[in-house]
Amino acid sequence: MKKISLEMGSGGKLMRDFIDDYIVKPFNNPFLNELTDSALLPNNIGFTTDSYVVDPIFFPGGDIGSLSVNGTVNDLIVSGVKPEFLSLSLIIEEGLEINSVKKILNSIKKSSEEANVLIATGDTKVVRQGQGDKIFINTAGVGSIIAKPCPKKIKPGDKIITTGTLGEHSLAIMLAREEFGIEAETKSDCAPLNFLIPLWKKGPYWMRDITRGGLATVLTELSEKLPFSLIIKEEKIPLSSPVQAASELLGIDPLYLACEGRALLVVAKEKADTVLNKIRKNQKGKKAEIIGFVDDSIGKPGELLLSTISGGLRLLEPLTSELLPRIC
Amino acid sequence: MKKISLEMGSGGKLMRDFIDDYIVKPFNNPFLNELTDSALLPNNIGFTTDSYVVDPIFFPGGDIGSLSVNGTVNDLIVSGVKPEFLSLSLIIEEGLEINSVKKILNSIKKSSEEANVLIATGDTKVVRQGQGDKIFINTAGVGSIIAKPCPKKIKPGDKIITTGTLGEHSLAIMLAREEFGIEAETKSDCAPLNFLIPLWKKGPYWMRDITRGGLATVLTELSEKLPFSLIIKEEKIPLSSPVQAASELLGIDPLYLACEGRALLVVAKEKADTVLNKIRKNQKGKKAEIIGFVDDSIGKPGELLLSTISGGLRLLEPLTSELLPRIC
Repeated sequence: MKKISLEMGSGGKLMRDFIDDYIVKPFNNPFLNELTDSALLPNNIGFTTDSYVVDPIFFPGGDIGSLSVNGTVNDLIVSGVKPEFLSLSLIIEEGLEINSVKKILNSIKKSSEEANVLIATGDTKVVRQGQGDKIFINTAGVGSIIAKPCPKKIKPGDKIITTGTLGEHSLAIMLAREEFGIEAETKSDCAPLNFLIPLWKKGPYWMRDITRGGLATVLTELSEKLPFSLIIKEEKIPLSSPVQAASELLGIDPLYLACEGRALLVVAKEKADTVLNKIRKNQKGKKAEIIGFVDDSIGKPGELLLSTISGGLRLLEPLTSELLPRIC
Repeated sequence: MKKISLEMGSGGKLMRDFIDDYIVKPFNNPFLNELTDSALLPNNIGFTTDSYVVDPIFFPGGDIGSLSVNGTVNDLIVSGVKPEFLSLSLIIEEGLEINSVKKILNSIKKSSEEANVLIATGDTKVVRQGQGDKIFINTAGVGSIIAKPCPKKIKPGDKIITTGTLGEHSLAIMLAREEFGIEAETKSDCAPLNFLIPLWKKGPYWMRDITRGGLATVLTELSEKLPFSLIIKEEKIPLSSPVQAASELLGIDPLYLACEGRALLVVAKEKADTVLNKIRKNQKGKKAEIIGFVDDSIGKPGELLLSTISGGLRLLEPLTSELLPRIC
């Protein structure tokens, strides 16, 4: 490989290898375990960053502004950090309508209020036409560490919960691009996951937001580190009817579709129902489901298996090639 | 104004108005006083962000990698914050040579070691060819507040110090672009300003790095907030011979050229010589000079005046139009 390819930005295996080889290994330090997660710094500070390059910048259910707040806020929350402050850095292409910028900034304002964070510092750069694409936004987030995820405590029998249906963000982007010649009424699930913060008291071992690479990629990243396998049940996976229909029509696997307002949790068996009920009490968690469990008898250690509706078992791999560039 | 123009990214007046109208006012909160500075958060945390879009990505004396470390580190230092951690977010254009990315990451590694900061978290996005320009980098920085700048204590007689010569970064970029048909041997001044950290003990009232818009813009931003004027002496302003020659040849005013490793300080009269000597003891501060003073008799409150070699007084305005896009 001599040149950067789109696949390296997919959130899939190629990207993880690239980041591992070129960033995590050379920059090796105790805070940088994984470049995709929040860093847990001394003095109880959590720190994360994300650049957003979503195309189109406006889509049903959100825009690049709400995405840049929610994406970063959610990265902190799933790491056990209460988000408090965001930085906001804009790279704007010359010629973008000022009204679009206003609309995006207004959306950032609303989203940051909803997510209970303050924009504390920022930066603006303008590049010539053709050297960017409308607007790219970076937000970094800092907050207070309120819980330490402990994936090492995960044991057979623990339950896997999704806080909602899968793939609406990806589908909304696809439809907004009008590349697929299908029509459906769907909105991005883009939302802040603040309602999960109190759940850290219930002792989940692990949380992750379901972003690039979808559920399958996020869960294989976990399963690979475990001495057990993870099994998810196809029949339990909540899908909205537009996502179900579009997936069948286009032959896309919703397990690889990105969300921007959903998370996965691993919780001890005896706490799973309590946690599920708490999640369902929130409007954004109404469709939450226990979708699987940690296993030490069916699969091999490190595997992620899908128990299909037809009764079979399918090994799930992390995403390797880019389904849809610039989803976030 | 209906569309974003290059001038809005210049660091000059148009940009300040844009940021003020569309960001600072709507997002008004006690931490966001100015979007260009570091935010001083509770629990002694300083926080800043910058996106780097410099073109070309490699230039004499540095590259976009060293720039993205030094620029952010310096923003913290001049705000009285000891830099500790950086986030690193890459937006890479598909097709960029992997070797270029390696070289940039290596440069980030070296610079972060020199600046004594750790890369704690990160993100990578890839955009299609033609939707970006090689690589854009965002770094956000966090550190511990070690001093609170107090520009309100500035009084007539206080001295203005520059830590070195002006404009080498801008000139290095111009020459690297080969747009001006001149040749000169110059390197960017891009460097971390960590040697200024201990100087906060000497009680400077104010520090700023001399970036976009140059000395004139940085000092007018200060003078506008003061009930005094600032006077700088042309004869005292240190310029390297390539910058002096190129400025004369091209009719560019070096007072508006950006640096990436120089700062300005305002210090009480009686401490000025001690501070100057401390700065000069560092290799990067060898060319430091006392270039001016705070005045309450010659100029009007809020003015920045240049006392010229020929004996006149010239009012300096902040930069309004873009001299050179994508300098940082």
